[in-house]
Amino acid sequence: MRIKRLKIDTYREYILYLRRDCDLCRAQGFGALSKVEVMANGRGIVGVLDVVDEPFLDSDQIGLCEYAYQKLGLPEGTEVNVRHPDPVRSVELIRKKIRGEVLRREDYRYIVQDIVSNRYSKVELTAFVVSTAQGAMERDEIVYLADAMAETGESLEWGREMVVDKHCIGGVPGNRTTMVVVPIVAAYGLTIPKTSSRAITSPSGTADTMEALAEVSLSLERLKAIVEQESGCLAWGGSFALSPADDIIIGVERPLNMDAPGQMIASILSKKKAAGSTHVLIDIPVGPTAKVASFTQAVQLRKLFEYVGDRMGVHVEALLTDGSQPIGRGVGPALEARDVMQVLRCDPDAPQDLLDKSLDLAGRIIEFDPAVRGGRGRATAEEILRNGAAHEKMLRLIAAQGAREPVRPGPLVREGLAARTGTVASVANHLVAKCAKLAGAPVDLGAGLDLLKKAGEAVREGEPLFRVHAEHEADLGFAWDYWQRHPEMIVIQ
Amino acid sequence: MRIKRLKIDTYREYILYLRRDCDLCRAQGFGALSKVEVMANGRGIVGVLDVVDEPFLDSDQIGLCEYAYQKLGLPEGTEVNVRHPDPVRSVELIRKKIRGEVLRREDYRYIVQDIVSNRYSKVELTAFVVSTAQGAMERDEIVYLADAMAETGESLEWGREMVVDKHCIGGVPGNRTTMVVVPIVAAYGLTIPKTSSRAITSPSGTADTMEALAEVSLSLERLKAIVEQESGCLAWGGSFALSPADDIIIGVERPLNMDAPGQMIASILSKKKAAGSTHVLIDIPVGPTAKVASFTQAVQLRKLFEYVGDRMGVHVEALLTDGSQPIGRGVGPALEARDVMQVLRCDPDAPQDLLDKSLDLAGRIIEFDPAVRGGRGRATAEEILRNGAAHEKMLRLIAAQGAREPVRPGPLVREGLAARTGTVASVANHLVAKCAKLAGAPVDLGAGLDLLKKAGEAVREGEPLFRVHAEHEADLGFAWDYWQRHPEMIVIQ
Repeated sequence: MRIKRLKIDTYREYILYLRRDCDLCRAQGFGALSKVEVMANGRGIVGVLDVVDEPFLDSDQIGLCEYAYQKLGLPEGTEVNVRHPDPVRSVELIRKKIRGEVLRREDYRYIVQDIVSNRYSKVELTAFVVSTAQGAMERDEIVYLADAMAETGESLEWGREMVVDKHCIGGVPGNRTTMVVVPIVAAYGLTIPKTSSRAITSPSGTADTMEALAEVSLSLERLKAIVEQESGCLAWGGSFALSPADDIIIGVERPLNMDAPGQMIASILSKKKAAGSTHVLIDIPVGPTAKVASFTQAVQLRKLFEYVGDRMGVHVEALLTDGSQPIGRGVGPALEARDVMQVLRCDPDAPQDLLDKSLDLAGRIIEFDPAVRGGRGRATAEEILRNGAAHEKMLRLIAAQGAREPVRPGPLVREGLAARTGTVASVANHLVAKCAKLAGAPVDLGAGLDLLKKAGEAVREGEPLFRVHAEHEADLGFAWDYWQRHPEMIVIQ
Repeated sequence: MRIKRLKIDTYREYILYLRRDCDLCRAQGFGALSKVEVMANGRGIVGVLDVVDEPFLDSDQIGLCEYAYQKLGLPEGTEVNVRHPDPVRSVELIRKKIRGEVLRREDYRYIVQDIVSNRYSKVELTAFVVSTAQGAMERDEIVYLADAMAETGESLEWGREMVVDKHCIGGVPGNRTTMVVVPIVAAYGLTIPKTSSRAITSPSGTADTMEALAEVSLSLERLKAIVEQESGCLAWGGSFALSPADDIIIGVERPLNMDAPGQMIASILSKKKAAGSTHVLIDIPVGPTAKVASFTQAVQLRKLFEYVGDRMGVHVEALLTDGSQPIGRGVGPALEARDVMQVLRCDPDAPQDLLDKSLDLAGRIIEFDPAVRGGRGRATAEEILRNGAAHEKMLRLIAAQGAREPVRPGPLVREGLAARTGTVASVANHLVAKCAKLAGAPVDLGAGLDLLKKAGEAVREGEPLFRVHAEHEADLGFAWDYWQRHPEMIVIQ
């Protein structure tokens, strides 16, 4: 059979296409959903078959979706062998897991290797994710999974004894503490080579917000030079294949909207270990509309983070924080970047909650330094902020990564008004996030919500509660409609 | 957007195709793996998006895979609305199940309705199957699932007080008892409108074996007329949408090679209830290479079958049978049909194990008749067989369904020889099944294995243990190679 490239994007699944009337389908009994191996010149991939009756394939051609074509890396027309693949052996381990058995360290290695080699179909990948979800993993199994994920991709080396990092488990809009913490910690002198993700389901990730100010796609050489010079950076982690299994697993977790503790911990700590971190602070926001709703649940999660970190040789501290409402005013890349810069400039209008939380986190990280007396971290962080060193460090990071024309909040604006006089009782994280996404965030960097009133503040009827910023009329309308249908987004009592 | 039909067979998943550069992808943020709803004239389907950069779509066209095109039922070029679908609400129930919660009767109804409406992607379907696997379902949940599956499709009515049926959970090659039992029971006078499946992962299903003798794809009218006349039939069940959820669920169970007890019971009993059965005998073969390996496990399964049957209003008896090796000699449609006819003709060469087991099962079914004294069923069955009434009934069923030119065993033959003199210690079910499939069964009706020696029989070195029958040289080679690599298929001691 000869290769034909079909520019079909199937999101990281190898889909292959054969004509129903081709000899192979008849002789080998291939049908839709069959797993098929394509081999040539010692390279091979295993994909899932779609059977076609379309003129776009000849009967001696095998179509490869774009992802498969790129992976195989052979030109169109190359003669390939097509055959039944050997069964993926680690799928038997998933069946074991489904039966409730405990898997061993090497079992997780086999599974993760097969995931990274793209030998799993979406069905098999989902079976793995679901079988290891909620309560189904012993805590040592989380260690095995995390280690296997960290080992399977690239890893970064910094040649320093202590490399610190922070990570928030998410769920709280705004909350862009990382961009305040990194300049403070780097200005203090600790090494904090922060790589962040873009938004997956949220209105902005740290990489999106930083992109409103500077370049974030950096080569490894560039990243290393900046960290060497500045002790820190605020880059997008997607350029490096740190824990690549994670990126593949997300492909099924996202449509299921799943985030089981074991997988979350393995995902986060595998990336941190591969990124060369020695000390990691985990931010666990707790609140009725956050990812973690109860204190008990949060404490369990903290202990699990610490246990797994210890076993992986990474010092992890997990901090329970207030996740009852968004942190800061802006929700969306440009609006959040504005908040961050206000805090760093010690602007009296800076959102106090973002300032406070950032100092707490930076203080705890500074206390990773054995020379710092317990409890003195926050005061040190505050001094670095007040004396302008953090702001200066941020400007140096922006310049080093490549400053961009600052993105302004979207020009189309509509204000959400208070329906009555009273006190704001609650601002719901998940509804604010959804509304900001409908406004266009994070794709439109200027889009999002600007929260003018937060829980506890007094409002009068008709006073603005928030502003929607958008780049397009339609998006402004979508966000506005959502607010009209979800007045529980901001409750006044 | 206008519909374009793409004749791509994706195995029961609605895949939709949009150009990456189309307005919709940009404006709505659709990407690969997005769920998308296509609506026109009050009809709608929800599918999963592949994004293409291929000339086979214009930027105002949405491509529909064949399954989606057939379901939507609108001609090419029809103007449709394309939008973000409402979330599939029952997916939240699956997340609950993953968290370990017990679901209610109405929850299973919502889930099964969404499955049958094809609102689940493969990822969501897999999440359902895995979350309800092994040990994760309370026994009442199995009842809820089975009832929901039975209610969601067509159902057959026979207008008789007692309608009997039998079902084997599978795993033992050969074992074509149904084709002996149905003629005996129908000749006795009980109503046994047997609809069977084709092979899914085995070398033959009852429908495949019957097809070596007669037509099996019957219209409902035809089926009813035959049952009215003959009290029985041996038809393919695939023509009727009995428990259609089951056929969709199989699409992910098969690649995972999963068969969790709860799902198996729900699958079998939902189809029986929808088929109008009032009394069902379940055959549970037990043996080291059968589906159920231990007696304890088999007893648990029997109790679960009986419990769920009672709650569904179907009288179920489950029988534990010898599953230590294949039943009968032939494995593959034509070879099994030959065994069946030998038994029915009371041929002295008929395989004794198939005869014995069929009489046991037929006897138990005859005892469903309140008029039959407990323990007298087998003798009654034997008499019906010995006096030729069962054979005559089979000939009448074949004639009524439409006799086919009997298929002969494949003309290409190779014998597997005993490597030493001794006694056959074991014949491994799963290896025999695999070998027969490599020979071409069930696609080639004449292909398969003819087992000449079974466990307990004496053999001399060089004596034939079995014959491979094939239609094609290549298949004969595949089966032969498999035997060379798996001498543990037949162990001599």
